[in-house]
Formats: sequence, C-alpha cells, structure tokens
Amino acid sequence: MSLPAWSAAARARVDARLLARFGDAFPEAFAAACRYPIETGGKRFRPLVVLAAAEALGHDSPLAEAAAVAIELVHTYSLVHDDLPAMDDDDERRGRPTAHRVYGEGAAVLIGDALLTEAFVVLAEQGPAAMPLVVELGRAAGHRGMIGGQALDIGMDGRIGDLDSLMKLHRGKTGALIRCAARMAGLAAGANAHSLQALTQWGEAVGLAFQMADDILDAEQDAGEDGPPSYVKLMGIEDTRERARALLDEALAAVAGLPQPQMLQALARHAVEREV
Amino acid sequence: MSLPAWSAAARARVDARLLARFGDAFPEAFAAACRYPIETGGKRFRPLVVLAAAEALGHDSPLAEAAAVAIELVHTYSLVHDDLPAMDDDDERRGRPTAHRVYGEGAAVLIGDALLTEAFVVLAEQGPAAMPLVVELGRAAGHRGMIGGQALDIGMDGRIGDLDSLMKLHRGKTGALIRCAARMAGLAAGANAHSLQALTQWGEAVGLAFQMADDILDAEQDAGEDGPPSYVKLMGIEDTRERARALLDEALAAVAGLPQPQMLQALARHAVEREV
Repeated sequence: MSLPAWSAAARARVDARLLARFGDAFPEAFAAACRYPIETGGKRFRPLVVLAAAEALGHDSPLAEAAAVAIELVHTYSLVHDDLPAMDDDDERRGRPTAHRVYGEGAAVLIGDALLTEAFVVLAEQGPAAMPLVVELGRAAGHRGMIGGQALDIGMDGRIGDLDSLMKLHRGKTGALIRCAARMAGLAAGANAHSLQALTQWGEAVGLAFQMADDILDAEQDAGEDGPPSYVKLMGIEDTRERARALLDEALAAVAGLPQPQMLQALARHAVEREV
Repeated sequence: MSLPAWSAAARARVDARLLARFGDAFPEAFAAACRYPIETGGKRFRPLVVLAAAEALGHDSPLAEAAAVAIELVHTYSLVHDDLPAMDDDDERRGRPTAHRVYGEGAAVLIGDALLTEAFVVLAEQGPAAMPLVVELGRAAGHRGMIGGQALDIGMDGRIGDLDSLMKLHRGKTGALIRCAARMAGLAAGANAHSLQALTQWGEAVGLAFQMADDILDAEQDAGEDGPPSYVKLMGIEDTRERARALLDEALAAVAGLPQPQMLQALARHAVEREV
C-alpha cells in the first residue's frame, strides 16, 4: 500500500475515535468546544507514527490504536494552550480561528485540560497492559518532556543562544512526543529490548530531523532575522539540510531489521524530505 | 489517634511525596515554579479522604498513598488554572501571590499542565493494579467531572438559576474529586462492590455537604447579593444548614459498617461542621 492511502485509512480510524471521546460530556456546549480543535484537523503525524511502528513489529491491537488516539489528544491540547494570548497568541490555526478566539480564553484553558485528561482515560480503559504506556506518555508529555520544552521556549531558563540549548528545547517540545509515539507502539506489542531500542532511535532521530525540516521551511518562506532561534540560524541552511539527511538515514537504518519497517521508513522520509 | 494528629502525619507524608515529583525537571527554574503552588499548601482534604477511606477498609499500601498524591496534584493544578486572569482572576491564594502573578500567565498554564500530567504518572508507576484508579481519576477530573463543572461555572451552559443546575455544577466542580478520592481508596484495596458503594455514597454526600458548608461560610462573611449563585441564595441559610446536616448523617451511616470507619467519619464531621 502507498503511504498516502495507508495514512488516509489510519487517519480516518483515529479521527472517528478522537471525536467519539467527547460525545457524552456535560454540558453539551462544552463537548462541542472540545471537538472543535480536533475537527480543525492536522496531519495526525504522531498517531501515524504509533500505527506505522506497530505495523513495523507486525502488531495490530486495540491498545496500539488507543495509544494513537491518546497521543493526538496530547498534541491537540498542547496546540490549544500554545495558541493562548499568554503564550504564542495565535488567532488562526489551519485557516480557522483558534479555540480561544471562538470560545474565549477561559474555555480554551478548560478545553486543553479536558483533552489532556482524556488521553490518559483512553489508554487506561485498555486495562493493565496499558500501564507502561501511561507512564511513557505522562513522562513524555509532562515537565520532563514536552512541557519542559515549552517552559524553555517561553524563556524560563534564559535565552536560547546555542545549539545545545536549542536541541534540548526541541527534544522536549517536539521530540518527546514523537519518540513516545514510536515507543508506545513497542510497549503495546510487548517488544523485546532490541526492538524497543530501534524504535527509540527512530523516534529520537526523526524528532530532531522533523524540527530541522520545519526550520528550513520557515527560513525559505521568510529570510528575515526575526522570529525564534532555529537550526538554520545557528548552523546555516546547508548544514541543517545535511544534518537532517544524516538523521533520516540513521532512522531508516535503525528500524531496517524489524519485521515490516516499510511504512515507518516511508513516514520518516515523508516527514523529513518535505524540505530537505 | 485524634483527627488533628492523624491529619498532620498524613499531610507530612503526602507533602514530601508531592514535592519530590518536581525535583528532576528540566529546566530547574520550571521545576521550582511547579513546586510553588504545592508549597502554598492547603488543607490537603482530598488526600486525607483517600488515606482515611483506605484506613476505613483496614488497608494501607503504596498505591493508596500514590492516589493521595495524584488527587492533590489534580486539585492543585485546577486552582492554578482557576486563578488565571481568563478565569477567576485571583491575585492571591492563602496569602501568597498566585502562580501567574509570580511567574506570568504562560508559565502558570504550563505549571497546571505539568501538575495534571504528573498525577497520572504517579499512579501508573505503581503498576497494573493502578489501572482502575487511572480511569477513575481521569473520568472524575475531566469533561465528565471537574472540568465539566468548571465549564458550567464559566457559563458554557447558560445561567445557573435553579437548584438542579447548581447541584450539577458542584457535583462536577468539587464533588467529582471528593467522590473519586473515596473510591480510589476502595479500588486500591480491591474492595468488594458493597464497600465501594459505601465509599461512593460517603463521597457524594460529603462532596455536596462540603460545598454547602462553604456557601454558608461565604454568606456569613458577606451578606451581599453579589457573587456566584449559591445554595444559601437558592434555599436560604437555614435550609442549607439542615440539608448539609442530613447529608453528613447519610455519609456517617454509609460507612458505619466498614472495618475502621472512625477517621473517615471524623473527617466528614470536620469538613461539614465547620459552619453548619
């Protein structure tokens, strides 16, 4: 199957399950508000990683599917909170008004809180086998991972002026969830240490390369010196391209020995080669 | 043991474990920011409920202690977000500046997010037996419970003008976590359906009575007609007192048949009789 066809089918499964989580809320107006940022859509990259990593192991289970839903809930909540006036102050996302523009700031805080909370319910409803995934997701999403990266991003540890601190920021802010997506698939499959390490390496390499590809895209669209620190500003566009290509090669090689790595490899290529 | 002595010892255990969760965060400045609302203190009523309910069953375990820590993390996060300018806009809590006054609004959003996320990690680290507690806490904390109540509170389902809608609001906003605290102790102990039902009834009755006691206290301090809807405004102070007393009696009776209900009963009396 081609990556686009596989992705479209996977996205449809995940989207239906995402929306179903907010059908029985009270009050109903709030349930609709929780569905709004989910319906705004997106590439669903992190759930695709979970499902492609599960496929790489020859694994398919309700637990892997729950992990795909859970990680997208965490990603979506982080965007809702990130868009708030007190954070990035964004009025639009994917051509639609952001949640706080539609429902107000207070409601947007609550929408994000509800999506984050539901991520853990989705996983835990799968029973005892979900426990290592709850730990994995919580550590990746919290102050040791994504939220720690966000805290660096809003300047809570001073200025981001060198490559080390920028990589630390991105390992948290975007890397932690991508690494977690790959690892949750391994944990759901009960993978051995060797396979889990392969998925971890894939996730860490793709997480960094993904951000570099983003920075290259941003640099090509806007050559200015304004904006946040980026790999392109610190390394130059050619070195960033070269580094991203090397990380992609590392990711492809890391999972080459797994039973069915083709879709996971195609996903990495697609994510990184957008602009590299 | 007297309730104050028992409570002081239980609080010390919970506080030490709460703070330890944010010792290894990156960046360190953010870890300190996460400790700030925890250090602001509080009655730790919800963790005391977990530990007293466990004691009522003759149960004591690391899982029950983790549940006590987790529910206080959820409560503390909800206060940090509730205090935000976009919500209640409170500058002080317990005589100290609120988190957003000290660290800024963006950081306060992230602090709350980190505390909420960590609640699930604390539970899940206890292994497969924690799974029903993760589901219980997530449902109580999310859009089906506390956050749903908050959404009603900020007017997402219209005006709160009658007793039914006020009770619905409080069953979510404050009741869900108190009920959850009692039930998590039962789930940690592997209690049978009868004992779990007794704890559920205790939690639901105390949750409502607790809020009525709060409303009575508020009414006595400020006789004005301003402020949010309250039981006192809708029922009058005498009927509210009578209703709270009846709920307390119901709670005391519900758990009377458990092995060691004394501390759980004393805690209910203390919580409700403050002002009733």
